[in-house]
Amino acid sequence: MTIGSKPRVVALGGGHGLHATLSAVREITPAVTAVVTVADDGGSSGRLRRELGVLPPGDLRKALVALAGTGEDVKLWNSVFQHRFGGTGALAGHAIGNLVLSGLIEVLGDPVAALDEAARMLGITGRVLPMSTQALDIEADVTGLDEDPAVVRRIRGQVAVATTPGQVRRIRLKTASGDVPTACPEALAAVRSADMVILGPGSWFTSVLPHLLVPDLHRALVETQAARVVVLNLVPQPGETAGFSPERHLDVLCEHAPELRIDAVIADLDSVPTPDRLRRAAAALGARAHLASVSTPGAADRHEPGALARSLLHALTDTRRADGGEVVGYAGREPRGGEEDTWR
Amino acid sequence: MTIGSKPRVVALGGGHGLHATLSAVREITPAVTAVVTVADDGGSSGRLRRELGVLPPGDLRKALVALAGTGEDVKLWNSVFQHRFGGTGALAGHAIGNLVLSGLIEVLGDPVAALDEAARMLGITGRVLPMSTQALDIEADVTGLDEDPAVVRRIRGQVAVATTPGQVRRIRLKTASGDVPTACPEALAAVRSADMVILGPGSWFTSVLPHLLVPDLHRALVETQAARVVVLNLVPQPGETAGFSPERHLDVLCEHAPELRIDAVIADLDSVPTPDRLRRAAAALGARAHLASVSTPGAADRHEPGALARSLLHALTDTRRADGGEVVGYAGREPRGGEEDTWR
Repeated sequence: MTIGSKPRVVALGGGHGLHATLSAVREITPAVTAVVTVADDGGSSGRLRRELGVLPPGDLRKALVALAGTGEDVKLWNSVFQHRFGGTGALAGHAIGNLVLSGLIEVLGDPVAALDEAARMLGITGRVLPMSTQALDIEADVTGLDEDPAVVRRIRGQVAVATTPGQVRRIRLKTASGDVPTACPEALAAVRSADMVILGPGSWFTSVLPHLLVPDLHRALVETQAARVVVLNLVPQPGETAGFSPERHLDVLCEHAPELRIDAVIADLDSVPTPDRLRRAAAALGARAHLASVSTPGAADRHEPGALARSLLHALTDTRRADGGEVVGYAGREPRGGEEDTWR
Repeated sequence: MTIGSKPRVVALGGGHGLHATLSAVREITPAVTAVVTVADDGGSSGRLRRELGVLPPGDLRKALVALAGTGEDVKLWNSVFQHRFGGTGALAGHAIGNLVLSGLIEVLGDPVAALDEAARMLGITGRVLPMSTQALDIEADVTGLDEDPAVVRRIRGQVAVATTPGQVRRIRLKTASGDVPTACPEALAAVRSADMVILGPGSWFTSVLPHLLVPDLHRALVETQAARVVVLNLVPQPGETAGFSPERHLDVLCEHAPELRIDAVIADLDSVPTPDRLRRAAAALGARAHLASVSTPGAADRHEPGALARSLLHALTDTRRADGGEVVGYAGREPRGGEEDTWR
């Protein structure tokens, strides 16, 4: 496969993790599509979802902001989108961008058109799409909540799952009426025509895995010709992945998507206590482990966009070489091999 | 005085009345400035004012929308600005434009900058300014609320005054701390450099007269070289001006601003039962009465923008001729004298 100078990249996730990926991907290519979870039920998003029946807008807003342009006008609207009302009244805590997105969805009657319009307003690079045009609910099987460790309890809702003191074993996604969710068609098309799809980093059970639980999105991820890249978290998340090793993240991914083959797993050098185990876990999914310094100096829980971009680019070129493909010069900074390769 | 092809027009008011004036003025000139009351304490505006401490945004939003551009993108944002959240929740009844304006004011810390940015977003013709950058309160002396008709009660708040079953005798404007209000400096400058200033139509005590109760704005209106035009309402407003004749509107204006000279009074032919009385009342203010058909066929309580534009243009040219000035071709439709003159 030959890839031009603007690889089409799809980043799947939600919240701060997706923000990190998008901040990196925009350094590589303008042809980026964010596919965003729509299962949030907390905070401003949860209130809007319950009150207005719209998609929870918070993660969509964060993705828009991550891809926003840098002109002065755009910067102001970016600030306004992020601004939260203060005080103790009915509006306290609502981000204005959440309200604007909700209004656009109500006026246009179509979340994709609403996101495209917000994208235009914010001068964004690429496109932001919901993984489904229906709001969804996460349901988890959780152990460790009872004295008997074998008891499995069903926990429902993103906030409840993300903060459970128990161990999440398995998650499912449902629509409000209990149906199997369907994917946003534009998101399916983006995955099928991508050169690279990226899962993670982010809240593993509530932002990353949900994409694999929408059956037609799962199918598109399994079948796409794109390079499939997993970006691991820098630190375990209290609650849903407390105490999880890097390998355990991959095991859980595999348990939820046994057919999915992965081409590359990107992890931070300093966050992997046992590199050999990670390499073996990656290999079990068909992937090479790419270990590099991808965290922000002085903020070890945040990816550094430039470093993550280099690793992503490296993972893409490496995957393409392994496929016998040809890779032609990308936009963005070239990877500096020495500082990020430990696996050759 | 010589006026170029783009007369500078300042329209002072609030709510639907100001919307009517602005819809007419934009047919005459792009150089239009709306100066908007900021004393609303009801509905979405009142809630935002109380909760966030911002200027009540509703009348400002209506003025922006009246001057909005007509491109497709702008039309969508215009709809979004006007869209109100439904339901019975915390957001019910809030217009999205009110929330966006409130957010812009909070982010920029300056209502004028916020309005200029919203104006840019909506592609508006001209400019929208608050009459004061502080939220204000209306206080009215009202009779007829007691058995003894001589008893004067003090009623406070725009909603209370606008809907009082009594007779409003006099109003005052105060800041929250009880101080004398000050005008927005940009509004003062616009009035002083205008070719025409327009008061009314609108809720007489709560949208029109407040401008005369901000002392420095009052002074600017008295001193400006602009033609001063009053546009009378088409129908008396239940509550604050129930049973008021057209003449009574002018009397009340004079009582609140004895020094103010008026050049032209525009009234609808069908709304004036006793034209001679109106001419005399206008003359007492120094004005000519311009009677014309300015209502919308089939909606006698709404001004027809084109007809009102012609009357405004006529009033301006007439005032300038009376001053010995010269008027050079305006943009917009020419007045068709026959259909609107009854006073020559």
